Amino acid sequence: MTKLPGAYMRAEIDQAIPAFAEGVLQDLSASVKAATLDKLDAFYTIARGSSDAAANLISYELMAELQKPVTTLPPSVFSLGNGLQLGNAGALIFSQSGGSKDLISAAIGFKNAGGKTLAITNTPGSPLAAEADAFVDIKAGLEQAVPATKTVICTIAAGMALLAALKPDYAKACEAAAKAMLASADAKLEQADQIIEAVKSTPHVYVIGRGCGFGAAHEMALKLKETTAIHAEAYSAAEVLHGPLQLATKPLCVLILDTGEEVSNQSLSLAEERFRSVGANVFRLTPETVGAQGLTPAASSAMLLRALYPVILEIALQLGLDPDQPETLSKVTVTI
Amino acid sequence: MTKLPGAYMRAEIDQAIPAFAEGVLQDLSASVKAATLDKLDAFYTIARGSSDAAANLISYELMAELQKPVTTLPPSVFSLGNGLQLGNAGALIFSQSGGSKDLISAAIGFKNAGGKTLAITNTPGSPLAAEADAFVDIKAGLEQAVPATKTVICTIAAGMALLAALKPDYAKACEAAAKAMLASADAKLEQADQIIEAVKSTPHVYVIGRGCGFGAAHEMALKLKETTAIHAEAYSAAEVLHGPLQLATKPLCVLILDTGEEVSNQSLSLAEERFRSVGANVFRLTPETVGAQGLTPAASSAMLLRALYPVILEIALQLGLDPDQPETLSKVTVTI
Repeated sequence: MTKLPGAYMRAEIDQAIPAFAEGVLQDLSASVKAATLDKLDAFYTIARGSSDAAANLISYELMAELQKPVTTLPPSVFSLGNGLQLGNAGALIFSQSGGSKDLISAAIGFKNAGGKTLAITNTPGSPLAAEADAFVDIKAGLEQAVPATKTVICTIAAGMALLAALKPDYAKACEAAAKAMLASADAKLEQADQIIEAVKSTPHVYVIGRGCGFGAAHEMALKLKETTAIHAEAYSAAEVLHGPLQLATKPLCVLILDTGEEVSNQSLSLAEERFRSVGANVFRLTPETVGAQGLTPAASSAMLLRALYPVILEIALQLGLDPDQPETLSKVTVTI
Repeated sequence: MTKLPGAYMRAEIDQAIPAFAEGVLQDLSASVKAATLDKLDAFYTIARGSSDAAANLISYELMAELQKPVTTLPPSVFSLGNGLQLGNAGALIFSQSGGSKDLISAAIGFKNAGGKTLAITNTPGSPLAAEADAFVDIKAGLEQAVPATKTVICTIAAGMALLAALKPDYAKACEAAAKAMLASADAKLEQADQIIEAVKSTPHVYVIGRGCGFGAAHEMALKLKETTAIHAEAYSAAEVLHGPLQLATKPLCVLILDTGEEVSNQSLSLAEERFRSVGANVFRLTPETVGAQGLTPAASSAMLLRALYPVILEIALQLGLDPDQPETLSKVTVTI
């Protein structure tokens, strides 16, 4: 029997929240201890593509909870550049395959510079996991569709579990997220049909977030581009009212990912109002629209992605594309 | 007499290289000493918009030359979040106006957390300059067009002068850049007319760079969007062959900014080849096409921007727009 277009992606989206609930409750204290992460002053994330979007999102939650800087380093500093001298810092290296040469070079370079390394990967036996001081298995299981979905959501779960190991108080948030997200795992986004129609008929899309929601916006824009070939671009709510607003003089659809942080509310509302006033087609999305309450910003981001992935899948199918296999892409990309 | 559309932007582009040549030769050792930047283990840049693109570009040159991590922090960590505990780190805070409240909050927050702060600004008497441990005047002079051009190029000059103060050997590179760039300041980009035609007639544009060229690509994409309302997006050559390649199934123009780093050559060439093979309209640009030789990657980036700004101006005029005043924008954006 021939596989239906998008069958892999659909199945993997359905598996995402059960896998999240398992991953977010992992006890990662042994990995934290092995890489002495609890003794460090600063963290650097190193990643590419969807993993980089997830890393960005997790960084924000780590900074908010630990009050330590968590910023991103380009892998090429190690693979192409002269390397770095590091203080008392650790690298969180995210790679689903664990096989990207530039990320393995980064792990080696970071260790040689005196830093600690943790690999967050879906492939525990991978070269990256072997090079790092410790690794975390995101336990997403096999992913066959080219566009990553459940591995992204499981990477967020692993990031939250890591935070619980560094700050035991946070474990309550992990438990609450597992429970609330399982309860609304299959709920359909209220605005789904409207968004599908709007995105299909608009050549340009902005996905806007702030804080953790900015990383989620990156993932959403990347996935739309990869799966539907629609030009979607992510912006922070703080940046988008500078020059980027000008694109709204053309037909523009704006998706605002509201992860519920009280402090971001005002800037998301300002962006919403400005884009509406210049004629853009604006949707503001919250985890509450699928019934999930009381989530942290990182968990809200995971829930919003889970609710939006089927929307992307449906857009691709309606455009006559096979979401499982975008025509120009392969699953593993080699970076030189 | 009524001002012609784009008259401010045109004049400011013309002033950029003479101002760069002056700024890059500034002696910033007093500022470095005042903020004890030479004693620090790590740097964080804090900026928005065009200044953030320039900061990204400078970060790469600082990392390559100093072998210390230079990464970016979102200003909202201080304005909205809980702040940070910092080790022996410094913040480089970039703001042309020096008046953005969130950047001033970041300077105060960073200092309260025990970090050192340097403001890089076009407004020495600004609140940001007053809050920082020291400041650098980028000396671009008054900029009246909404799209920043000469202030971006002067910010790069200030970053290079800062590097010379931290690493005296680098002063030779500053002198060479001033000389070479003055000599080819007014040279026209060979491919200018072809690029104008291609970008005008294509709904989607990617601007691709690597290393310093990635920051330059960000600035170029932002400026195209702001000035011409064309959907241009920046990508690192390392990222763009993942999901983003799929956009090439639609009409796509690709501008590759080649800043001449030997180590980036292979990945830029791979991107060039892949995008050509899927039918995109690809232009690869080097400072050599305007006659500038022997530049560092940061100086190459400044030269490429100088060569491309008139192309953006011309596209806007041919589309019937006034580049000096994009219809939805004002010069200073308030971030909440």
